[in-house]
Amino acid sequence: MAKFMDKDFILSNETAKKLYHNVAAKLPIIDYHCHIDPREIAENAVCTNITQLWLYGDHYKWRAMRSCGVDEKYITGDASDYEKFKAFASVMPDLIGNPMYHWSHLELKRYFDCELILNEENAEEIWRMTSDKLAEGNMSVLDIIKKSNVEALCTTDDPISDLKYHKQIAENPDITVKVLPAFRPDKGLNCERKGFRAYIDQLAEASGVKITDIESLKEAYKQRLSFFASMGCYTADHGIDTRVLYGEAKCKKDIADIFLKAYKNDGDDITAEEEATYKTDLNRFFAQEYREMGWIMQLHFGVLRNVNAVKFKELGVDTGFDVIGADTGIGNLAKLLSAMETDGGIPKTILYSINPSDNEAIGALLGAFQTSYNGMPKIMQGSAWWFNDNESGMREQMTSLANLSALGRFLGMLTDSRSFLSYTRHEYFRRILCDLVGQWVESGRYPDDEKTLTKLIENICYFNTKNYFKL
Amino acid sequence: MAKFMDKDFILSNETAKKLYHNVAAKLPIIDYHCHIDPREIAENAVCTNITQLWLYGDHYKWRAMRSCGVDEKYITGDASDYEKFKAFASVMPDLIGNPMYHWSHLELKRYFDCELILNEENAEEIWRMTSDKLAEGNMSVLDIIKKSNVEALCTTDDPISDLKYHKQIAENPDITVKVLPAFRPDKGLNCERKGFRAYIDQLAEASGVKITDIESLKEAYKQRLSFFASMGCYTADHGIDTRVLYGEAKCKKDIADIFLKAYKNDGDDITAEEEATYKTDLNRFFAQEYREMGWIMQLHFGVLRNVNAVKFKELGVDTGFDVIGADTGIGNLAKLLSAMETDGGIPKTILYSINPSDNEAIGALLGAFQTSYNGMPKIMQGSAWWFNDNESGMREQMTSLANLSALGRFLGMLTDSRSFLSYTRHEYFRRILCDLVGQWVESGRYPDDEKTLTKLIENICYFNTKNYFKL
Amino acid sequence: MAKFMDKDFILSNETAKKLYHNVAAKLPIIDYHCHIDPREIAENAVCTNITQLWLYGDHYKWRAMRSCGVDEKYITGDASDYEKFKAFASVMPDLIGNPMYHWSHLELKRYFDCELILNEENAEEIWRMTSDKLAEGNMSVLDIIKKSNVEALCTTDDPISDLKYHKQIAENPDITVKVLPAFRPDKGLNCERKGFRAYIDQLAEASGVKITDIESLKEAYKQRLSFFASMGCYTADHGIDTRVLYGEAKCKKDIADIFLKAYKNDGDDITAEEEATYKTDLNRFFAQEYREMGWIMQLHFGVLRNVNAVKFKELGVDTGFDVIGADTGIGNLAKLLSAMETDGGIPKTILYSINPSDNEAIGALLGAFQTSYNGMPKIMQGSAWWFNDNESGMREQMTSLANLSALGRFLGMLTDSRSFLSYTRHEYFRRILCDLVGQWVESGRYPDDEKTLTKLIENICYFNTKNYFKL
Repeated sequence: MAKFMDKDFILSNETAKKLYHNVAAKLPIIDYHCHIDPREIAENAVCTNITQLWLYGDHYKWRAMRSCGVDEKYITGDASDYEKFKAFASVMPDLIGNPMYHWSHLELKRYFDCELILNEENAEEIWRMTSDKLAEGNMSVLDIIKKSNVEALCTTDDPISDLKYHKQIAENPDITVKVLPAFRPDKGLNCERKGFRAYIDQLAEASGVKITDIESLKEAYKQRLSFFASMGCYTADHGIDTRVLYGEAKCKKDIADIFLKAYKNDGDDITAEEEATYKTDLNRFFAQEYREMGWIMQLHFGVLRNVNAVKFKELGVDTGFDVIGADTGIGNLAKLLSAMETDGGIPKTILYSINPSDNEAIGALLGAFQTSYNGMPKIMQGSAWWFNDNESGMREQMTSLANLSALGRFLGMLTDSRSFLSYTRHEYFRRILCDLVGQWVESGRYPDDEKTLTKLIENICYFNTKNYFKL
Repeated sequence: MAKFMDKDFILSNETAKKLYHNVAAKLPIIDYHCHIDPREIAENAVCTNITQLWLYGDHYKWRAMRSCGVDEKYITGDASDYEKFKAFASVMPDLIGNPMYHWSHLELKRYFDCELILNEENAEEIWRMTSDKLAEGNMSVLDIIKKSNVEALCTTDDPISDLKYHKQIAENPDITVKVLPAFRPDKGLNCERKGFRAYIDQLAEASGVKITDIESLKEAYKQRLSFFASMGCYTADHGIDTRVLYGEAKCKKDIADIFLKAYKNDGDDITAEEEATYKTDLNRFFAQEYREMGWIMQLHFGVLRNVNAVKFKELGVDTGFDVIGADTGIGNLAKLLSAMETDGGIPKTILYSINPSDNEAIGALLGAFQTSYNGMPKIMQGSAWWFNDNESGMREQMTSLANLSALGRFLGMLTDSRSFLSYTRHEYFRRILCDLVGQWVESGRYPDDEKTLTKLIENICYFNTKNYFKL
Repeated sequence: MAKFMDKDFILSNETAKKLYHNVAAKLPIIDYHCHIDPREIAENAVCTNITQLWLYGDHYKWRAMRSCGVDEKYITGDASDYEKFKAFASVMPDLIGNPMYHWSHLELKRYFDCELILNEENAEEIWRMTSDKLAEGNMSVLDIIKKSNVEALCTTDDPISDLKYHKQIAENPDITVKVLPAFRPDKGLNCERKGFRAYIDQLAEASGVKITDIESLKEAYKQRLSFFASMGCYTADHGIDTRVLYGEAKCKKDIADIFLKAYKNDGDDITAEEEATYKTDLNRFFAQEYREMGWIMQLHFGVLRNVNAVKFKELGVDTGFDVIGADTGIGNLAKLLSAMETDGGIPKTILYSINPSDNEAIGALLGAFQTSYNGMPKIMQGSAWWFNDNESGMREQMTSLANLSALGRFLGMLTDSRSFLSYTRHEYFRRILCDLVGQWVESGRYPDDEKTLTKLIENICYFNTKNYFKL
């Protein structure tokens, strides 16, 4: 029997062990998509207890606690930090097979030198150990990033952001990690939602462009794109709804009129056809801008957000009430990509679906829009995203990608996280990757050639992303 | 090489063996959803040959025979019982990998002490052995239930039922197993089908409430709910069509008018919007009733029923002509649940999809509607249902649930069966569960802690259901 | 560690090894669905280098190269044959886990006695070895077919074809392999596409029937069916779009009028309802014809074709720009099958979906339309098709089929290929099948009975197809 999460955790064969320990473990991390707050890096924030680190903002953990019947008091309510931690520790044994079980123990091991098993009995001792460690004073955000061997990371930023924390970070000689913004224009695309008008006003202010029509809207966006580029931005990120019939909208109303209507009505009374026409137009506009700038366009799709109306009213967005949609409209996405290709070419693009049943459809889709871009493929599937970021999800995504595309060109892991301790997810991914490759080698499915294997692992864990993002 | 289906069947590691033999195997069975006929329990029915037990009503086996090219004469036709059994035995070797292959052999071993392999050559001997065993006189329905260590079971009952057999069972001191009814109101929800009017009339008669409008319809249902509750009922079961746009119906016609129209027309000429409006309203009505009574609402979805028009005319419902729908409308289900939550809260709810591609979407959906209910989570995913009730289906459902929710809180197995020999499916499930958990432990993915593991297995196999159902 | 792709490649257990080497490896191949050009058989074509064999027409390999960032010059462009081969060899290491990695090495081993690993370093030597082997003069198309132990194969042919190469082949006493045509009427069903009119004119000419209305269209088709039958044809193949609402079309326009409109307009301005009505009618017509002739109807569905408008304009059809659709409309397919059953009975039918998420839905669907046909089941699931024709895809398809139908009646492998070297895919399939069955036997899930196992493997690899196709 293997020991619980020892040094060879997940590595079931000798090739896997060699590849992980000799190659993967030593590589720096490029975390090219996450949701951490750049302010916390600029200000080098420090936490004083593990509840602040683990439970203040992580809706993955909130979900897990709700799934075990924990009262909301101990999740987002007014219980004390220690009570919340204890409640979380108490449900851990029921989370057998959940990635959080492994992430939490990896975080205790790597950042707190704590080898205890997280459960109700050990909660108090772990609380003490972690509090002591935090009190030692070398667990600031920058300490964690350094300890984690993070070379670069991309945050997620609204086009109206002044990126002042990115500026502070860039100007601070003590901060060696590259912290780059990413351009996330979703709010300006959601012409059918309340708040659209106010957002456009903010965009006008941020850009210094008076927005009176669709042309000036695009001018304003171009200004923001230039500004983001000047701050080192290489990538944009769209949360798109593939149920929208991109490229098929036979809307008689002109795009210019739709924009004015949406602005005037603040998103009210926009028909599905108008929404589709507007979103198609804006997505196509951005795609050409990104292509010209050499940026990478990340498309995340399939999520149904805030489905619980009661909880949405109580707790707002990003609190654990988003779900996986079952009709993710790959056909519509294909039409959107084809339109972008016709416009002049899709930019470098990464596709992520929240529904793992789409893995094969995405693998096939990649091939239909692939072209050479400085010797690299232009279009990629992102790693197993969000709800799929678990061991079987990652194995399935990599197996599907290997079957239908070229695993050797995969960009590998990103955390998509709000927490600074999440870098252990790169370790988790790398162990799974090495195990998968090792199984293929040891079973005679791939040659046992050290040089080739080393290059393969290095590329997937590090160099493919470095080259694709020109970092 | 392991022996064919020996005592360690499916148990591939030492932890699995210990957990199964020392813990899981000893626990009573609570079969909280099945389709057995309470009359057969009340009357303690006895079969005289294995064809009666296996082939009189089990459309799983009929399907398997059809899939092997057996003539309908030997399935639902006029062949003799022995001929039918021999035809079934003859196709067994082609059913490699089918759960029926394992169920059938488990049933022979556990109920008939027969270790023979079921095939054409052994058919005659097995017929004789099983007939002899049945003739011995200790294989009545109650004998089988007792031998199977069944503590409680829930049948499936129409609201118009007088539950007379449940009454007889409850009053019979010799029957120690709890036999509870479950409330299945589908017929009264299908306002678009022929037979609606007659059904409403029957409901009026059963309830003693004159049904003249939507209000009196609900009064009639409340009467039936009270009656079912008085008979020990704790749960309702809806077969819902998630392609219906629950909660989105923008039907101008009032729900009251729709009901009157459906009644008058006997389901004819009901538009899709009217159907959606009616079904949404009734489902929301029932949900609040269940919540107030502390009942559990089971939602089964995704099935396309009676798709073969020719066979439907020949053989009627439940004869093996239902299939898996590919568009199971998780988004519509989310809207329905959100509406119920807004109405006052969803009741305790169990979700089952017939399409295994929905596993992850359901796992995510649970988390969005989870709240604490006496320290238990309120919303559950049911075990791998119907077509998915096989080894890989169960492993995938449990792996998905572990990834996205909390496997430790899982309600475990139910048979959904029409046969009294099906309790071996609980054994099958428990072996698979123990093997899965054992693999995680032996590979260092979960601590090797006997106390925790014992509790985990006990909960999933027995206590979670007992507590959730307040049995 | 197993050696790379040695004689026991994929065979992880002793039972698998015995079954493969003693049974599966020795059986002839019936390749009942492929896209090879009968002219190349009739003329016994010879290639002079491996690029001609591998890269002239195989869009699987083009996709793989694009997925690795290879410039189009080296794919479909004007680079030399050697440059193209070298470019392909160079990307091989990145294709870890891709079936092409295994296919390519199997082809080198089986046809060229080359045991080298395909990569950039070995490219020149392999080019030389394969060129030498081709120059030896025993690698013509007929040599390859003979060496591959192919007993029969079915090409894919348009109803307007004169089948002259089939005639030449049949009349050539030196050609012992059976080469049968298959009837693929797609062009005459696509009433909504440009080119429809010209196609109908060609059909009239080929059939000698003047087509003036829907009746004469069907007469023309009957003539072609008779002609194909006279040439030994046993099977038809339809690429159907299951998003079409077969059987539900409530089109007021008569089918006769729709045909005339489509002919007059050359596919222009055909509504979705008219398309559905026409396609439903024609599919139902063909089904009854096939049934009466005892033919097999193959339905392939779920593909979205030519999704990249730019590449479609540049390179045309079948160049690697088709993808997997995510909404494959199983419910519509069920309606179409039910209509055919009502018309008089579905013919022998094989179903293939391009989306592996449909495996379970197909498995269930089979059972709902199964009837006995000379002791064989009438309706089958085809092997893992196109994008799914890889190791995990085949394991999943067979596991699903075993769970939901009867694996012992499976028709096994076909290549669907345009290349004469693809027969090694039958070897690949047989190894995977034997490994899967071996695992079940060695783990006690199926009896270790040599006679039964031998029959099972023989049937799936050879006899089921031979009997089903009456070859």
